Amino acid sequence: MRMNQGVEWAIHACALLAPLWPNKGLSLAALADYHGLPAPYMAKQMQLLSKAGLVRTSRGRSGGYALSRAPAEINLWQIARAIDGPEPAFRCSEIRQRGPCATPRDKCKQACPIAAAFAGAEAAWRSALEEVTLADVLGRVGEQSDPAQLLRSMAWLGEQVVEIGGG
Amino acid sequence: MRMNQGVEWAIHACALLAPLWPNKGLSLAALADYHGLPAPYMAKQMQLLSKAGLVRTSRGRSGGYALSRAPAEINLWQIARAIDGPEPAFRCSEIRQRGPCATPRDKCKQACPIAAAFAGAEAAWRSALEEVTLADVLGRVGEQSDPAQLLRSMAWLGEQVVEIGGG
Repeated sequence: MRMNQGVEWAIHACALLAPLWPNKGLSLAALADYHGLPAPYMAKQMQLLSKAGLVRTSRGRSGGYALSRAPAEINLWQIARAIDGPEPAFRCSEIRQRGPCATPRDKCKQACPIAAAFAGAEAAWRSALEEVTLADVLGRVGEQSDPAQLLRSMAWLGEQVVEIGGG
Repeated sequence: MRMNQGVEWAIHACALLAPLWPNKGLSLAALADYHGLPAPYMAKQMQLLSKAGLVRTSRGRSGGYALSRAPAEINLWQIARAIDGPEPAFRCSEIRQRGPCATPRDKCKQACPIAAAFAGAEAAWRSALEEVTLADVLGRVGEQSDPAQLLRSMAWLGEQVVEIGGG
């Protein structure tokens, strides 16, 4: 199985918006340029983030995107779900109800033990991602980064930043 | 993201082989029939399970598949990996090395914090599935099932079972 590649792009975009919260943001062009991605690729992710209520947008010449909540209140599971959809990776097709020894539908009130095991594994996956917020990501990036590199990024961001109303 | 549907088929097939371990098994036709699946669909999963060393096969008119280890020594993660492949669902494309503020490759010795968070979540998913063996699945199916239903399945299995050498 493979997660949509847009999850990576969306989380990086949100991490870049995190230090600009609450009133500032970046244009779509700046978000795409910073990550070396074509603007239509980035646009699709930003639309999905907006639909999920994780970013807000302002239109017009100086329009762009800003986070709609504090970085500590947005976690990686929320972003992954916004981009990759809410469906579980393992989807039980109830094959126990098929074939010559099929279990009748009315005897299948409990989840199949196989489906239950995968549901448990996906809950563990979700919990692990819920524990990591954009604030955590930002903190770890800061710890890992070369100070000169951080300054270059901050200078670039300073030139690109736009005011986003309604925060 | 969506896991290959064959994971469900393969685990059900292994669960059906579990009570027949160590010396007995089922033909491909019986495995497909029991689950109401076309034989080619089931054949593909059985080949992948065989390649991963989870089942063994005997050829010929009375040939078929048997588990190659005890049901308590085969877990759901091993089967899922055999069918769905070993690659992680989240694949980091190192976008931090792209764009106008790219981090130079030699400064990227530590995993990106975003990739590290997903690796942690996938490890939690894997651990949860590793904790569930075919013996566990069989026990839970037994607890859930109607005794009359179990007897029908056992009678069907009794007619289909084949000896598989080399166990």
